[in-house]
Order: sequence, then structure tokens, then C-alpha cells
Amino acid sequence: MSTRVPFDTMYGEFLRVLSSVGFPPARAEICARLFTENSRDGVASHGLNRFPAFIEAVRNGRIDPQAEAIKIQSRACYEVWDGRMGAGNLNAYDCMGRAVRLAKQNALGCVGLRNTNHWMRGGSYGWQAAEAGCIGVCWTNAYPSMPPWGARERRLGNNPLVFAVPRSSGPVVVDFALSVYSYGKLDTFQRKGEQLPFPGGFDSHGRLSRDPAEIIESRRALPIGYWKGSGLALLLDLAATLLSGGRCTAEIGGDQEEYAVSQVFLAFDVASTPVAATADRIVEQIISDFQSATPASASGSVRYPGAGTLAIRQESLERGIEVDSEYWRQVLEL
Amino acid sequence: MSTRVPFDTMYGEFLRVLSSVGFPPARAEICARLFTENSRDGVASHGLNRFPAFIEAVRNGRIDPQAEAIKIQSRACYEVWDGRMGAGNLNAYDCMGRAVRLAKQNALGCVGLRNTNHWMRGGSYGWQAAEAGCIGVCWTNAYPSMPPWGARERRLGNNPLVFAVPRSSGPVVVDFALSVYSYGKLDTFQRKGEQLPFPGGFDSHGRLSRDPAEIIESRRALPIGYWKGSGLALLLDLAATLLSGGRCTAEIGGDQEEYAVSQVFLAFDVASTPVAATADRIVEQIISDFQSATPASASGSVRYPGAGTLAIRQESLERGIEVDSEYWRQVLEL
Repeated sequence: MSTRVPFDTMYGEFLRVLSSVGFPPARAEICARLFTENSRDGVASHGLNRFPAFIEAVRNGRIDPQAEAIKIQSRACYEVWDGRMGAGNLNAYDCMGRAVRLAKQNALGCVGLRNTNHWMRGGSYGWQAAEAGCIGVCWTNAYPSMPPWGARERRLGNNPLVFAVPRSSGPVVVDFALSVYSYGKLDTFQRKGEQLPFPGGFDSHGRLSRDPAEIIESRRALPIGYWKGSGLALLLDLAATLLSGGRCTAEIGGDQEEYAVSQVFLAFDVASTPVAATADRIVEQIISDFQSATPASASGSVRYPGAGTLAIRQESLERGIEVDSEYWRQVLEL
Repeated sequence: MSTRVPFDTMYGEFLRVLSSVGFPPARAEICARLFTENSRDGVASHGLNRFPAFIEAVRNGRIDPQAEAIKIQSRACYEVWDGRMGAGNLNAYDCMGRAVRLAKQNALGCVGLRNTNHWMRGGSYGWQAAEAGCIGVCWTNAYPSMPPWGARERRLGNNPLVFAVPRSSGPVVVDFALSVYSYGKLDTFQRKGEQLPFPGGFDSHGRLSRDPAEIIESRRALPIGYWKGSGLALLLDLAATLLSGGRCTAEIGGDQEEYAVSQVFLAFDVASTPVAATADRIVEQIISDFQSATPASASGSVRYPGAGTLAIRQESLERGIEVDSEYWRQVLEL
């Protein structure tokens, strides 16, 4: 069952609950806004649907609502921050904000963040950088969920990577995990009794499979680009660990669940590039060329990454945010 | 037919030919070394086998052997260089060297490079940064060779991405194009009459295919991670174009062949991180965890990216570099 809820109503409920579990007013406002925006943009898995589990993590002490990230060291346009196990979305928002400020001063900014929690929707921080006029790049390490290429046992996080470029009519943003499908997605397909549209892992005989049940059973989710995604996931973990001085995926995997991860935030100030004055026209030209390709099927369309988000956002703002009634009821009762 | 040639013999032949077509002595030495190292490391496609075509491009004026990249603008740790249509490998080597110097001064360095030519093996510049104690990241845009996800016509370059981390016993380096298989690889499989080990594109009916002939026919090479690689290729082109002020893939595709591409070089100084003193131990720990995963098949092994290169390099240095006799004959006659 789904229903629609106005943005301000959802935001108000999140704010009420966050305040009740100990977030100071200004922090509760940012946290509530980030959660509401995720549902508004069609990412309920990291918006409304995740909110009850987030509150549970605050209540059992895994997330400290009072903690704010503190700066550990800095040199020129590079800073290292410690998230002190505060809310992952607030830490990520603060650190991308810091990278943007460094970029405005130095053309380029880099922040390593350690001891933080799940950042919810990584794309939030790409949009944040792009809306501030910066190319934004960020990634996180994560609990081990994928085998290295050629292996059976999980050693790699799916380490989501975000890449965003500003554009006056709406930024271009990719935000993806390095496994083709998350376990959440595999589970959704399995519950619907559907096959995956494309191979997403190996079955227990080591064959590529579109069967979500087989992949959940083998625990061999497929890295994007086969061996390429396996290598990239390793490098993102290495770089996040070194640049933040935080924990690596191998250490995170020693706990029962994901806790104290490491992240990197990069911002490049477009106003400092040689094409500052014409950047928007250049981006339009590239997007327009991309979208000019003939669709592969008669009913298909070719959309740049970010276009779908804008369409859902507009519908959410006009008609209310679509919610799963059960999750919404849970939040009302928190 | 293959034979083996000592490193110094190959280097000497390259040096002779490069000098004969107008490269100044110091530049000919670096260029010859880069080409020889690519064959030494098992990447003959961008070493010996590519050398005759490279010389042809110098002779017909597409590559200027006298040109050196010049700095267009700089701000803090960010610089923009113009490659003036010089040799792509020399320009890339110079610009990664510049990014490393900026990183030594500022923790972080970024160089945008425009009007350059094919950089040959992108991994060269990852190894270069890592051997200088930096995390190195670089990418290039390219001639359009892949359709956007959901489209039939080519609009995206395969835009290779390189990511390298220093390690005293040999760096960890990934260097990959954003199509699963290059057209060169598809051609090799086709000539051998072999199917691809994994799906590498679509056939003319829009079905995933392992048949190289079908993919060459449809021109629908598969981006890594399906829609994810399509989005990332677009973002890499956007960022390379803005940060260098150079040409985008749409413009490059207006010519008959790849010419005047745009690139980005990033270096992060590991000595500036909070774990400078223990970085090597951390990297070893992560690699050791990665390699501890049980292989998926009894005969398989799990190797970190970069391990294979070191093994081939050692064999090349001990027994001579393995060469295709026909290409070697061509170079001797240049």
C-alpha cells in the first residue's frame, strides 16, 4: 500500500523524532531535510524506509546524536576529519561542505573522514557540491559484501562512488555501488519472484546468473565490469583508508555490522577552470549529444544521469512524496 | 611467431627511430623508455605493437615531436596545461609529474591537460605517481565507441580510468577502459574464432552476447556495470573537458580519428596523510586480506591488481621481452 505525504509533513515528523532522541535543533533540521530529500527524489531506501532503523541505531548507542565531526589535521587544500560516530549523513554533509569551501579558496578541496556511519544516499553530497558550483566526487568504504574477482569469499565492500557536475538546469550525477545489484535489490526481485534484467552474480556452480535467489545463496554478487569493479573497489578502500586514517573494509568486516567507515570528499571549483564563463554551455552541449543517440528500442529513451531524479522530485513536490504506508505508520508512532 | 628481445635492445631501437623523426634527445629517451616499459610489462598493444603507427602519426604531422606542453593557468594546487599536439605519452608523463610536484607542496595536485594525443598505456602514469609516493588517479576522454545505456548509436568514449596506490613491494594499480572489452580485444577473440569469457556487448537483436563478431557488427560494446559505466563515462568526459578547457568526446568524434583529447591527473601525497608512518603496513594488511579469499575454482588464484604486471616484468627482465616477430621486424626497418 502506498500513499502520498507532503514534503513539509514528512520533514516535520522526522524533525520531531530526531529532536526526541537527542539531536540539537540545528542538526535535527539538516538531518530531517536530508532524509526527506532522499524520499522526495525517489530513494526511499535511504529516506523514509531507512529512518526507523536509523533511530534504532541512535537509541542503542551506535550513532551519537550529539557528536559533530572535528578536524584532525590540515595542509593546504586537504583536511582530515573524525566523525566521532555521529550521524553519517550529517558528517558527510559537513565534510562535502568543507571540501567545497576549500575548493572556493584553492580551486580544489579534499577531505578524508573517518569514524563515521552510513551516509545514506551518497548522491546527496554530489548534488550538494554541484549546487555550490563544484564538480563533486566522493566515495565510502563499506562492510565486505563482494568476493574479489576469481574468489568465493566476500572481502570487498560495494564502496559506492559519486560523481557530479554542475548544470544550471539540474546537475549531472552518478551515484552507484560497485556491485551490479545491492543485496536489497536482489531481495526485492526475489520477493517479486522476478529474474534480474541482467546477470548480477554467480550461482553455486560458478555460472553467471540472473536468478536473485541463486546469488543470495552463493553470496557471489557481481562487481561492475567483472574484474574491473573488483579492482576499483579495492583501490577505493585503500585510498579512503589512507586519506582518512580510518578503518579499512577488512577491519569493518570484523564487527557484526557496518560501523566506523572511512570516506573521501573531493570538490573542484568550476569557476577556477579555464572555461568558467562557458561551462554551462559546454555541459549542455555534451548532454545534448548524449541524449541525441537513437534509443535501442522503439519504446526506449536515453536520459542523462540525474534526469530521472528531477522528474521524480517534481512529481513529489506537486503531488506529495510517495510512501510505503507501513513505513510511514512506523515513523508516526516513533 | 614470437621471440624475446632484451630491454636495452628494444629501447635502443625506439630511441634511434624517435631521434630520426625529430624528437630532441632528452624527449626521445623518455618516449623510448615509456614504449619499452609497456612491452616489458606485457602491454605490447601500447608498446612495440603500437610503435609503428605512432611513428606514422609523427611523419604525417598528427603528432608534433618538438612540442612540449605549456602551462596555461594555475591556482594553488590546480594547473591547466596545453599539450600542443605533442606525443601523448610525453604530455601525460609531464603532467602526472607536475601533479606529483604540486602534491608534494600542497598534499594534493590536479592538472588538466588539453590538446594532447593518445597516452598509450594509462597505467604508466599510475605507476609513476605511486613510485613517487602518491596515490595517483588519472583519466582521459576518447573517440566515441560506446552507446549510452539504452541507445544504439555511439556517443561515449571508453574513457580509461587509472587508480594507483603506493606500496614498497610494488604498487596496486587498476587501469581500465569503461567498455568491458576494447574493439582491439574483440578483434583478437574474433580472429581466434573464440567466444568472449563474459558478455561484452549486444547483438543486433539487442541481446547480451559473448560473440565478438556480433558485437563488432552491432557496434554496441557493453559499458562496465551496464548503466553505471555509461553514466561514469559521461561524467569523466564532462570533468576532463571542464578541468582542461579542452575538447569533449562529441567534438573529438567530429574528426575521422582520435585527435586532441582531454585528460586529468590527480596526485595525493601519502606522506601528508595521518598514517604516513604506517601507510605501507596498512596497504599490506588490505592486500593480504584481499588475497586470503578462497579461489572460486581449484585451479584459480586471487591476485591484487598490479601483481600480474610485476610477474611479467620480472620474466621480461630475466629472459628478454616477448615480442611479435612481425612488429619487431617492422621497427628494425623504420
